[in-house]
Amino acid sequence: MNAWLNVLRETLGPDKVLFSAVDRVAYSFDGTFEQHLPDAVVLAESNEDVSQVLRTASYYDVPVVTRGMASGLAGGAIPTQGGIVLSLVRMNRILEIDETNFTATVEAGVVTADLQSAVEKLGLFYPPDPSSIKQSTIGGNVACNAGGPRCLKYGVTGDYVMGLTVVLADGRLLRTGNKSIKNVTGLNLSQLFVGSEGALGAITEVLLRLVPKPPYARTALAHFPRLEDASRLVESVLRRGVVPATLELMDETAIACIEDAMHLGLPLDVEAILLIECDGMDQQSVMREVETVAGVCTEVGASRVEVAQSEEERAELWRARRSVSPSLARQAPNKLGEDITVPRSAIPEAVRRLKAVSAKYGLPIVIFGHAGDGNLHPNILFDRRDSDQWAKVGQMVGEIFLIALDLGGTLTGEHGIGTFKLPYMEAALGRTSLNVQWRIKLALDPQNILNPGKVLPGF
Amino acid sequence: MNAWLNVLRETLGPDKVLFSAVDRVAYSFDGTFEQHLPDAVVLAESNEDVSQVLRTASYYDVPVVTRGMASGLAGGAIPTQGGIVLSLVRMNRILEIDETNFTATVEAGVVTADLQSAVEKLGLFYPPDPSSIKQSTIGGNVACNAGGPRCLKYGVTGDYVMGLTVVLADGRLLRTGNKSIKNVTGLNLSQLFVGSEGALGAITEVLLRLVPKPPYARTALAHFPRLEDASRLVESVLRRGVVPATLELMDETAIACIEDAMHLGLPLDVEAILLIECDGMDQQSVMREVETVAGVCTEVGASRVEVAQSEEERAELWRARRSVSPSLARQAPNKLGEDITVPRSAIPEAVRRLKAVSAKYGLPIVIFGHAGDGNLHPNILFDRRDSDQWAKVGQMVGEIFLIALDLGGTLTGEHGIGTFKLPYMEAALGRTSLNVQWRIKLALDPQNILNPGKVLPGF
Repeated sequence: MNAWLNVLRETLGPDKVLFSAVDRVAYSFDGTFEQHLPDAVVLAESNEDVSQVLRTASYYDVPVVTRGMASGLAGGAIPTQGGIVLSLVRMNRILEIDETNFTATVEAGVVTADLQSAVEKLGLFYPPDPSSIKQSTIGGNVACNAGGPRCLKYGVTGDYVMGLTVVLADGRLLRTGNKSIKNVTGLNLSQLFVGSEGALGAITEVLLRLVPKPPYARTALAHFPRLEDASRLVESVLRRGVVPATLELMDETAIACIEDAMHLGLPLDVEAILLIECDGMDQQSVMREVETVAGVCTEVGASRVEVAQSEEERAELWRARRSVSPSLARQAPNKLGEDITVPRSAIPEAVRRLKAVSAKYGLPIVIFGHAGDGNLHPNILFDRRDSDQWAKVGQMVGEIFLIALDLGGTLTGEHGIGTFKLPYMEAALGRTSLNVQWRIKLALDPQNILNPGKVLPGF
Repeated sequence: MNAWLNVLRETLGPDKVLFSAVDRVAYSFDGTFEQHLPDAVVLAESNEDVSQVLRTASYYDVPVVTRGMASGLAGGAIPTQGGIVLSLVRMNRILEIDETNFTATVEAGVVTADLQSAVEKLGLFYPPDPSSIKQSTIGGNVACNAGGPRCLKYGVTGDYVMGLTVVLADGRLLRTGNKSIKNVTGLNLSQLFVGSEGALGAITEVLLRLVPKPPYARTALAHFPRLEDASRLVESVLRRGVVPATLELMDETAIACIEDAMHLGLPLDVEAILLIECDGMDQQSVMREVETVAGVCTEVGASRVEVAQSEEERAELWRARRSVSPSLARQAPNKLGEDITVPRSAIPEAVRRLKAVSAKYGLPIVIFGHAGDGNLHPNILFDRRDSDQWAKVGQMVGEIFLIALDLGGTLTGEHGIGTFKLPYMEAALGRTSLNVQWRIKLALDPQNILNPGKVLPGF
């Protein structure tokens, strides 16, 4: 047995340290195809446990991959260099909900949906809603700066982070931020850790901003014969001063998949549909907003707009969007979902080029995403057992990233870099940026023990 | 003449490099009482100029203080160690306003009010509105993460920064971010430079997010016999789902000053007044919002609520808030305005303790600020020629900061640290945070030539 493993078992107690073959396999993968065995798994229960793990790992120079539920889609939580998987799922207490200052203080292992239910019972609202919300943890959401369909109006996870507790590589506890809404005391360390994918420290506690729960929502579904028109809608609606909570785009490839699986009666003769939801505190305003949106849809070229008149009709309209991912499973044994982001104006051109990539390689790319943010999820459908198809998928992903960069966009809007996007980082950011990022990484983690081989290419 | 000065004159040309006694004095101060002469001043006109300055400064190990209009209130732009003042006011071009993606790309020296006018002509809106808006530059606003009265609804400067061009200490050009709204590609370098007060690099260009211009605004002024009730209003209003653009608090000390100078008919028998403004795209909604706010004011204890019925009445209500600072000049030869932030719920206790400090030292403290954010500006009135008073002011400032920290708040909401708040940084952030900040500082500026002696204590 490794010396460091003995130290961990002695200091933490044996029930927090796993190293059987079965346990190592259980912690070897995330939401992707990749897999690599850790040498051991620690189920930390406190900041002190996490500090002990990192002190030990520093002394013995062992890689540490901090994780929550490992639902990530970029390989970020896979222990690609072995070492220790540090799971924070036992740190799952909601420490405080402050109903006066509208904040929640939670441990990193709290499942996001659990936090949402807890605050909604008090009339408050935590808006970020990644589709993994029922599995993924706040710590993972912060580490990847998770998004979701509601970002257009409400922003991403980072927009709700007011403060953090982070255990540094050397085991010291760093606290950032506090309940002050405006705070320019020193460098903004909180936002440096947001999206850092476990490479700068282990986030163990999060102070989150909450907002009042909007009680009203109205939903519409618009059919667009031309995708350009659906894209133009975003600017036109915002110009009218309406910021929908949700503006979800499904292109004709997505519509066909959903219809094939679900027979919802979606139009098969249009290039795109948009699912639009407005919400708010005032029923009349929300009603007027959704009517404005419906009017603008028609003005810019929608052939049909359905506005839900009841909660049942609303649920029915959402069924289409919620069915996209499950529907894909019927089309092919495997899918690889990407997460590119482009300026809003470039969505039509991005979709055109994605279709050209699909045609070139002969594999379907299903396109849906968050139109308001220019965040598209092109999903390649394939059979991994077919080595020819698998090779093509690698090439297609590369071309998809280059499309995003060429259109002034970026590699990822909400999934993160992990290991999958490392080869494209220099093209995305340039060497000066990578050099600066490495300097910061090594200033905080001089031995490169924190999630090594992730986020930043090289070494 | 210094060797480095010759190099700068030769490479940049003599009209960009000032070093006469008069010019050095002109660039020796900011919005505070402090002053220190630089050895030379460079008026840079391009990224290349800035790069040349920083390469030269690195080689000769000369301090560089980057500045815009130097309206800062914390000593951040004063060349306390001599060296070079690098002024970016000649870099004042608006490079692009993208009307489709709602962005503006500007050079750092653009005056904030000029940018606001330019985008408003196109129906767009850049919300941050520090009171220095007609003098201060976007670069300075980003470097200090400037706020203003509209932050409650619209957020601070940093919330609008999508990307930056920064010249690093070694002269290299770093570009961060782009027009992608969601972007988790690598570490969030943009937000690391926001609020860094020139200590990590010289910000030369800024990519800003814009929003549609809200055409409607309604304003109300509420009288509160008890300050606690004014403070409780914030939570109650937000709970009703109304987020006013502005929620400005003036306590009885501020009301007395304004009345003494302006005779506006403000109530002298209440503990506080609140100036409330709601804005939006829909006239009816804005009207309903301000009526909701007025109703809540009465519910929580306001003795009177005036709602402006015309643009003239609105201007009249704003006169009170706009008169605070000028009114103070009539009360005493000097004032020192602080910028503490506390959790919203702690405002009444903060005001109570500030009054106790005023009583203890026998100098007035006038209190006003952004109640929605818990951001208070206690202004100490005094006569600097009286050395006894000046000594007291130093002690009072220290006590004011300790009040903020004790109530879970912080040293500054929008002015920054500069030199003035350095002695309180360890109490505010703790040694681990300062150590991490120094590591990042030295990773980016290993010689400590960028605004040395600011933001971070020590060395």
